[in-house]
Amino acid sequence: MGLIVQKYGGSSVADAESIKRVAKRIVETRKAGNDVVVVVSAMGDTTDELVDLANQVTPFASGRELDMLLTAGERISMALLAMAIKSLGQDARSYTGSQAGLITDSKHGSARIVDVSPKRVREALDAGAVAIVAGFQGFSRLTGDITTLGRGGSDTTAVALAAALDAEVCEIYTDVDGVFTADPRVVPAAHKIERITSEEMLELAAAGAKVLYIRAVEYARRHGVTLHVRSSFNNNEGTLVINPKDGDTMEEPIIAGVASDLSEAKVTVVGVPDVPGMAAQIFTIVASTDANIDMIVQNVSTAATGRTDISFTLPKSDGAKVLKALEDAKGDIGFDSLQYDDQIGKLALVGAGMRTNAGVSAKLFTALFEAGINIEMISTSEIRISVVTRADTINEAVRVVHSAFGLDAEELAQVHGGTGR
Amino acid sequence: MGLIVQKYGGSSVADAESIKRVAKRIVETRKAGNDVVVVVSAMGDTTDELVDLANQVTPFASGRELDMLLTAGERISMALLAMAIKSLGQDARSYTGSQAGLITDSKHGSARIVDVSPKRVREALDAGAVAIVAGFQGFSRLTGDITTLGRGGSDTTAVALAAALDAEVCEIYTDVDGVFTADPRVVPAAHKIERITSEEMLELAAAGAKVLYIRAVEYARRHGVTLHVRSSFNNNEGTLVINPKDGDTMEEPIIAGVASDLSEAKVTVVGVPDVPGMAAQIFTIVASTDANIDMIVQNVSTAATGRTDISFTLPKSDGAKVLKALEDAKGDIGFDSLQYDDQIGKLALVGAGMRTNAGVSAKLFTALFEAGINIEMISTSEIRISVVTRADTINEAVRVVHSAFGLDAEELAQVHGGTGR
Repeated sequence: MGLIVQKYGGSSVADAESIKRVAKRIVETRKAGNDVVVVVSAMGDTTDELVDLANQVTPFASGRELDMLLTAGERISMALLAMAIKSLGQDARSYTGSQAGLITDSKHGSARIVDVSPKRVREALDAGAVAIVAGFQGFSRLTGDITTLGRGGSDTTAVALAAALDAEVCEIYTDVDGVFTADPRVVPAAHKIERITSEEMLELAAAGAKVLYIRAVEYARRHGVTLHVRSSFNNNEGTLVINPKDGDTMEEPIIAGVASDLSEAKVTVVGVPDVPGMAAQIFTIVASTDANIDMIVQNVSTAATGRTDISFTLPKSDGAKVLKALEDAKGDIGFDSLQYDDQIGKLALVGAGMRTNAGVSAKLFTALFEAGINIEMISTSEIRISVVTRADTINEAVRVVHSAFGLDAEELAQVHGGTGR
Repeated sequence: MGLIVQKYGGSSVADAESIKRVAKRIVETRKAGNDVVVVVSAMGDTTDELVDLANQVTPFASGRELDMLLTAGERISMALLAMAIKSLGQDARSYTGSQAGLITDSKHGSARIVDVSPKRVREALDAGAVAIVAGFQGFSRLTGDITTLGRGGSDTTAVALAAALDAEVCEIYTDVDGVFTADPRVVPAAHKIERITSEEMLELAAAGAKVLYIRAVEYARRHGVTLHVRSSFNNNEGTLVINPKDGDTMEEPIIAGVASDLSEAKVTVVGVPDVPGMAAQIFTIVASTDANIDMIVQNVSTAATGRTDISFTLPKSDGAKVLKALEDAKGDIGFDSLQYDDQIGKLALVGAGMRTNAGVSAKLFTALFEAGINIEMISTSEIRISVVTRADTINEAVRVVHSAFGLDAEELAQVHGGTGR
């Protein structure tokens, strides 16, 4: 029995009843002999409601004040959760990010954690209490002000505390059973992944899997924290996200899962002079807009014209500003035209076993070809292959790929049966 | 132009529109060349809603966690107010009680202020910003925990900051125009008091006037802070609560106002042996219940029986526990019986000029007698006379007394006209 960090999201503490249910689970974990640190998000839609309120007051809220406002959300949920636990006879103490020693830089709205010194959390544990910590928030030593960590911040808080306290595991409670081989709404045969490496998880999250935030997985990977993604609505085992550095010698399956993403658009810069430095020039301009570029593809230039096309994908929400920036630089770069396509879908196949298995790309392309799905862009990393297709074919693409790699639940059950598990 | 502390209650910041309206007023005060510190309560019914939420989770919430929960309320209103002010082009910064240096003891729910060191507030003012401070809350240096000051805490926060910052005035904004000579709902002829001493204000507040909390007035009196009670819905001058120690030589009117209170009940301990120490014994028992005793009257003992009756008033909400405590001690004290009467009304006539004017009591008793109102208890202090009557006669009592002492608006207007004001 060791130290366990548990993180509960907003849907797990949406009302008084949910809070009491979560309190019971926490007390059970404590009674089983573990030290327990709980990181909690704001209740249900509280954060959105507070943002609405701020918008009613002014559309140009200052970052410092917005952070002061939003951090009220976790203050409410953590105090209620501590009360609920205490009412079950188990001592509990709630701490703000600042009290729990989550020191950040002073970038309001998206602060980075620079130090974690959970002195009061340790004191609470030493006194036999459960420590409840507000997720999403920190404190800038430089300015003395309250900060927030941005989207997915509570996951990051939990991982950071797990690292600082050398926890056995960081349990991320959510409303699904774990990480799946594909989105079950798209692929009915998708199944829960039992174990996945943080590297694979990172690629899946980057490719659109919503269950964990990239930043939290990165932090977990860098600090060797084992994550356990599981449901707060049942006691099933979820998905373990492990770090092979742990000395864990599990045999990696070739493919962990298939992710898809419909939130991106494709920009093609047509007729770029094929001279050195052009790509650098284009992406310097794009970077200046703070847009998050994902895949980049450059075609071979046509000998006849000495010109080439460069395509890249980016979130649709970044589309307008990037097009404007490029259009403004048209004269300098000397391209012919810009094309913008927001009807694309992206599919990513992720698996650490890919490294040592040839033929994965071929199998992927064949599966899509046989289903009559056209591939528009391809990009690969060491453990991921991504392709862009038409948006309206993406779900079918995910299903055929999921099936082609033997991930469908029925087939898998047979495989497992065969190995006597 | 100096430093002004302004306090806005929950009804003044009930929604986004109200917050914008208050922000405008603050910016006007700042533009007039004043340094401004604003103390703000939680929006509208936020505090009650948070208490409800806590009750849904557990009826036995820990004080520490309840304080953590409730302080979320001011955090929300102060951040929104700071945003609103900034959106008008005036710099503003919000501070929690802890950030503003409001150090308290560690008695959760009713903490006392032990030190005020508003370093960050001064820095904000020096930088030309308006400082917004969360009312009602503080920080215990001993435990490192967040505390709340209890009912009326925001008024106390404002006065404490005004004292620590040596403010020119502490403006208490409310939804009425100031302090009145009597409750205008009871006495239509009641008028706003222009100036009142803090001593008188203290007696009025103790006698049931709701506009200011006793504790804040006490603090203001002890630290020589001038209060200005006024409406946040208009720009009228309100009521100045001054401290004669200021060297202010205003001629005191004989009577400042009439207050009434229907929230009390009367307990009579019948047939108490008339031997030394009996009153001490009875009130030691009463004090052990933490009840707030107000008036106490002991009749002369009847020579024949050697026994006397002792009556006292107390909040109705304390009635049951006091009766039980006395009943339990019946054998020890040796009284005959207990009477409980919750149909009483209390009237208090307050005025510093009473000290040097004979005949005030006689005039009061005569007015009530002529109106056919029976007096059941009488108690006096240096600047106050209180009487208990039947509850159903109290409003009539207030009206005849208000009139008998020339406080009715029409008469007063004549007096003012006569002195050329």
